[in-house]
Amino acid sequence: MRRPIITLTTDFGTRDSYVGAMKGVILDIAPDTTIVDVSHDVERHNIHEAAYILATASKFFPPHSIHIAVVDPGVGSARRPLVLCTPRGTYISPDNGTLTHVLNGFSQVNSTTETGDTPAYARTPEGCVAYELDNPGFWLPRVTRTFHGRDIFAPSAAHLANGVDVSDMGAAVESITCLPESACYFDDGTVTGSVVHSDIYGNLITNIPSDALGNEPEIHVLGHTISGLSDSYQESVGGLMAIVGSQDTLEIAVGEGDARTILNASVGDRVVVQRSRA
Amino acid sequence: MRRPIITLTTDFGTRDSYVGAMKGVILDIAPDTTIVDVSHDVERHNIHEAAYILATASKFFPPHSIHIAVVDPGVGSARRPLVLCTPRGTYISPDNGTLTHVLNGFSQVNSTTETGDTPAYARTPEGCVAYELDNPGFWLPRVTRTFHGRDIFAPSAAHLANGVDVSDMGAAVESITCLPESACYFDDGTVTGSVVHSDIYGNLITNIPSDALGNEPEIHVLGHTISGLSDSYQESVGGLMAIVGSQDTLEIAVGEGDARTILNASVGDRVVVQRSRA
Amino acid sequence: MRRPIITLTTDFGTRDSYVGAMKGVILDIAPDTTIVDVSHDVERHNIHEAAYILATASKFFPPHSIHIAVVDPGVGSARRPLVLCTPRGTYISPDNGTLTHVLNGFSQVNSTTETGDTPAYARTPEGCVAYELDNPGFWLPRVTRTFHGRDIFAPSAAHLANGVDVSDMGAAVESITCLPESACYFDDGTVTGSVVHSDIYGNLITNIPSDALGNEPEIHVLGHTISGLSDSYQESVGGLMAIVGSQDTLEIAVGEGDARTILNASVGDRVVVQRSRA
Repeated sequence: MRRPIITLTTDFGTRDSYVGAMKGVILDIAPDTTIVDVSHDVERHNIHEAAYILATASKFFPPHSIHIAVVDPGVGSARRPLVLCTPRGTYISPDNGTLTHVLNGFSQVNSTTETGDTPAYARTPEGCVAYELDNPGFWLPRVTRTFHGRDIFAPSAAHLANGVDVSDMGAAVESITCLPESACYFDDGTVTGSVVHSDIYGNLITNIPSDALGNEPEIHVLGHTISGLSDSYQESVGGLMAIVGSQDTLEIAVGEGDARTILNASVGDRVVVQRSRA
Repeated sequence: MRRPIITLTTDFGTRDSYVGAMKGVILDIAPDTTIVDVSHDVERHNIHEAAYILATASKFFPPHSIHIAVVDPGVGSARRPLVLCTPRGTYISPDNGTLTHVLNGFSQVNSTTETGDTPAYARTPEGCVAYELDNPGFWLPRVTRTFHGRDIFAPSAAHLANGVDVSDMGAAVESITCLPESACYFDDGTVTGSVVHSDIYGNLITNIPSDALGNEPEIHVLGHTISGLSDSYQESVGGLMAIVGSQDTLEIAVGEGDARTILNASVGDRVVVQRSRA
Repeated sequence: MRRPIITLTTDFGTRDSYVGAMKGVILDIAPDTTIVDVSHDVERHNIHEAAYILATASKFFPPHSIHIAVVDPGVGSARRPLVLCTPRGTYISPDNGTLTHVLNGFSQVNSTTETGDTPAYARTPEGCVAYELDNPGFWLPRVTRTFHGRDIFAPSAAHLANGVDVSDMGAAVESITCLPESACYFDDGTVTGSVVHSDIYGNLITNIPSDALGNEPEIHVLGHTISGLSDSYQESVGGLMAIVGSQDTLEIAVGEGDARTILNASVGDRVVVQRSRA
């Protein structure tokens, strides 16, 4: 049999025993599993960041992979633990918005009219199924109030890795929590998008797709204007540049520098692209 | 054959090649091993922290796992390298107190009368065996003075993973170094314990078991009083709370905050619980 | 079949999805691979550090291991992606000097006459072969400008792990970029070397081999003089000491302290050893 793969994305850090305990639980139930650390350094309780990291890493894994993502400020409260099975992978996380970008990969979530922090909801996409992890038979015998990653999410994933049918996990779920997101707007000659992530180098990743940029775009961000696209981060050491990044979207960077700090930028900041006339 | 599992707990950090070299040594000797990082971010030379992390992670692994823990300020000095086999797992570490909490899981170590930093000792528990790793046949050919993790602990663990009998590793050990620890004291209506660990969120984990708390405990810590237990970290954003944590013991936390910083707390600080009259 | 091993050394950090995406690509192509994190915390764009970490970790792995090292400030520019096969392991990295210390293990690279930052070059050593990774058949279908770790290096390594012949990867390479390095100079009774790495503890690792030290060396570094060698970091808590370190070379350390900070030392600083008269 093919070895199961379980990936982990958390804000638990790497100093404590939290991640180690989850790995122990998984290997105790499904000893042949390949466990893959995606990130344990998600900013504490930053569900936006977790959602972005989960989606951009998981899409490169084989479809039989099971992705656990636990950034869970509401642990112990009413939020549901979920499993979502898609043709591209199985996802396990609290129902708090962590699956937003994964769901976006299947259908445009109707969340763009929301404002503020009110969560939006998406229907479980066509071709996918979702269940609440409400069957204690797949939890640890004793579930604590503060660590469902170890007590519910890890053992449920391991039982799935062992071949348990996902429909045994709990009640079917029709609607999944999504984060309110800003979409791109296309206007006559301009595209308006926003910063969706800033990485450890301080590069600002936007949601503006590369094919919307045209040949000689002029980019406006936080009072700065950038003309044209660079081919490499080294093209302008110390200078502000625009480049098509690893997500195939517009990225704002500073050669050998930190665009986030230099521009004092944040996730959500607006970016406007003026496309050249063809 | 079942794949061997070797876990790693160190203060080596993740920037240098130290951890990578240990993994290379293990895979060179026992190529089919599943290597699991528990933590490499234990505070430098903090044996108390290592002991806590090792015990709270390792207890969730299957019993055939081999746990290497190397926080070893005395490397190159007279402290012995040890292997301890228990029914719940095999442990490899310097004999410097790292095994304290693991040993506590088997029998109450007689170390509570000790004061100050003088190490205490525990007899090897019933049902367990311990050996000094003094057989150079299971070391790397060249042992340096400064890196026994790579030169002694990793290859010894890998040979055990390959099925070498533990009694071939060296001389039997009857007594193992333990850290002096404060126990819980139960008095008429009160329990006195202490902070045993603070995690990366600043949550203060105590050694007071949940079943000693009663229904409406009043908790006294560093001049603050907390009434009753919370069900979730979200119950009181910014407020000091008491909650039963993931070790099934009393935990002091601040909702979305950092109790360690706010209370200026340290490991060892006293916590007193006044139990409600039944 | 023996399980393939692929190790990863990068400056990508552990917060973003970059490392996770590389692991996904590898497991999608070569699902039975054991992936080993060596380090993702190499200082950003510090090729010297990457070269040192890669060489000192990889030499402990079994020879069928494939080592990917991506510290790649020039991604998207003209620098070539390389694979180097040696009897001790296979290496995949940009041709930017990352392989310097690996190559040094096979033959003294003729780079010691170089000064400044001009890169030197080494011929592919006897018994080794090197190829440019210029065959798009082993890349991801879409290669971005900014993330060749995921798009070129990871899939190429995975195809090699699957048994693809390395000569299918691209054009043979005769000459590999090396970093300019300072060698040790031996004079009548003295050895002059330099600091080649400082680790997370602040220990200063030099390139002066232990067998050049004699019995009672006097060590001069940054205006300080150290007499004789210590046997353990604990010999002098707070004091400056010289010790033979884990690379079997002279190391400058401070017991329970940080020699780099205390001496204000940097990689490249000169260290002179006065050997005792026999």
